[in-house]
Amino acid sequence: MSKSVRIALDAMGGDHGPSVVIPGAAHALSSRPDIQFLLFGDEAKLAPYLAQHAELAARSKVIHTDVAVAMHDKPSQALRRTRKSSSMWMAIEAVKNGEADVTVSAGNTGALMAMSTVCLRTMAGIERPAIACMWPTINGRAIVLDVGATIGADAQHLVDLAIMGSAMARIVLNIETPSVGLLNVGVEEIKGIEEVKAASRILREGKIPSLRYQGFVEGDDIGKGTVDVVVTEGFTGNIALKTAEGTAKQLATILKEGMQANLFTKLGYLLARSAFQNLKSKMDPSHVNGGVFLGLDGIVIKSHGGTDIRGFSNAVGIGFDMVRHQLMEKIRHSLAVADDRRITITDEMDAGA
Amino acid sequence: MSKSVRIALDAMGGDHGPSVVIPGAAHALSSRPDIQFLLFGDEAKLAPYLAQHAELAARSKVIHTDVAVAMHDKPSQALRRTRKSSSMWMAIEAVKNGEADVTVSAGNTGALMAMSTVCLRTMAGIERPAIACMWPTINGRAIVLDVGATIGADAQHLVDLAIMGSAMARIVLNIETPSVGLLNVGVEEIKGIEEVKAASRILREGKIPSLRYQGFVEGDDIGKGTVDVVVTEGFTGNIALKTAEGTAKQLATILKEGMQANLFTKLGYLLARSAFQNLKSKMDPSHVNGGVFLGLDGIVIKSHGGTDIRGFSNAVGIGFDMVRHQLMEKIRHSLAVADDRRITITDEMDAGA
Repeated sequence: MSKSVRIALDAMGGDHGPSVVIPGAAHALSSRPDIQFLLFGDEAKLAPYLAQHAELAARSKVIHTDVAVAMHDKPSQALRRTRKSSSMWMAIEAVKNGEADVTVSAGNTGALMAMSTVCLRTMAGIERPAIACMWPTINGRAIVLDVGATIGADAQHLVDLAIMGSAMARIVLNIETPSVGLLNVGVEEIKGIEEVKAASRILREGKIPSLRYQGFVEGDDIGKGTVDVVVTEGFTGNIALKTAEGTAKQLATILKEGMQANLFTKLGYLLARSAFQNLKSKMDPSHVNGGVFLGLDGIVIKSHGGTDIRGFSNAVGIGFDMVRHQLMEKIRHSLAVADDRRITITDEMDAGA
Repeated sequence: MSKSVRIALDAMGGDHGPSVVIPGAAHALSSRPDIQFLLFGDEAKLAPYLAQHAELAARSKVIHTDVAVAMHDKPSQALRRTRKSSSMWMAIEAVKNGEADVTVSAGNTGALMAMSTVCLRTMAGIERPAIACMWPTINGRAIVLDVGATIGADAQHLVDLAIMGSAMARIVLNIETPSVGLLNVGVEEIKGIEEVKAASRILREGKIPSLRYQGFVEGDDIGKGTVDVVVTEGFTGNIALKTAEGTAKQLATILKEGMQANLFTKLGYLLARSAFQNLKSKMDPSHVNGGVFLGLDGIVIKSHGGTDIRGFSNAVGIGFDMVRHQLMEKIRHSLAVADDRRITITDEMDAGA
């Protein structure tokens, strides 16, 4: 039997703190009994919730701190004021020290990324971290990265994103050789920026064995599920993600208003409720909750700040899966193989082949 | 009474050519009797449609050419092979020669932009063209630009986009001083690329009187209608637009499937049909059909290639409005005033104020 997955939780993180984190962790534990938790936070505030979840309490060790990063803290402030002392930092440090396999936090994204980068550093061969998210598609899910860790990307960083995203897709989507697309614009001949074109050449020529490069994809291909992994730099990726979330909310709002218009529409809503539930289950953020920080020397999962118990439980589940299916090893292996190929290709070119 | 608006149509453009262009023009004319049309295309192919629309025929002059740009032609090919001779080129040239006030084409975007730029050139004070689109929001519409004319933008180009987009918003949204936001990412302190930050400073300090600068907005602000004009460079803008279109289609597909699931959902759909029609009317692309090319020395309207009669009619209507409400003059005036302010500010800085 495999050994327990050790998960460090920033128990104070998120809009709702322990009132969501503790029941969420308990929920995750109920279907994955081989987890051990390290809970970082204010002991007095955690106690009442732990009292309600005896099984979780039995599998947890609480490490007290009364310092927490606020949701509106600037990353630099958070680092300056609460480095070493906050529940967020301490949870990350547990991964660095080898006391935990993964950290999960619903705390503020900027602070979590800044602290993770300072504490864990980037892994060998990767210069900059990335945030990967799961994107609901018509037929399932896709991985999209980077959705906002860093701005701008050279060709090599885009290739690294492709490799790291594919490693994650192998775990999340259970596909041995995921298909990868580079996000680009559809206007012929002004197609994309130089970095995207150069990355496309590397991916096409490099024959990286851990992924199947499909070429350029456009914005509407993400939701169509044209590829398993969509690669773009953090500025565009963040705007694409927020735009999609905004559009989904906008449609829901307009539809809801229309459904409240009169007795017929209200009755229609009741009769067709299963269709709306189907839509909700396919698009619900809590089902795909959990951004994965990639490229760091350790695994950090970012849960939505405003998520509910089920959403936080899903984020914990993603962290569990990433450890159990060896995300770090998969990335390291893919990078090493890609590097070997790169060297081989360079050798061939030097030899005039 | 104001004089007629003279509209040059690329009658062969779009997926459906004259079968949509001619009835679409006729539909536009029915509510705007003071249009005169120049129809560029294959006379024999236009004749049967014109025969069905006597009023349009009476207000139109057909200029024959049997050369047309295909939807899949590369812009450079289209330019090389059909410059001077194609219905698309000739329609644009009519604006250049002063024979028409505006061109409307449903032809391929890349070719239309390339030909428009070569034929009309950019207007004084503007270095690069842009495509502005109308984006449905919860409460109305917003203008988003650039959605794909050029890739990348320096700060000055972003400021020019703000000025041109505001001039268009004054016409389309009928707001004297439109609010403007710069599209950016939400992660604190790594907020955005240098060009976006620099443009923000210019817009804030420049006090351009034709617009109300609101600061940064994120992807989900577009559909919320947070500002009237959303400014971004063409790569990000194109991806945001396609992503939103894709998300809307994705939701519609999932919902439609759900509504067909069983008798209850089918009946529910019938009862709640008005709610779906409400959604459709608010999000329907044909209602907001018509990308406006800005920054050229003449007005060119791009209709969706696959649009229907009503959609093409709307694109013609947008062209009409741009001429009637003097888009070019509004842009020139705003640029001149902005330049005056810029000079004043520079003078003050030189004087050590």
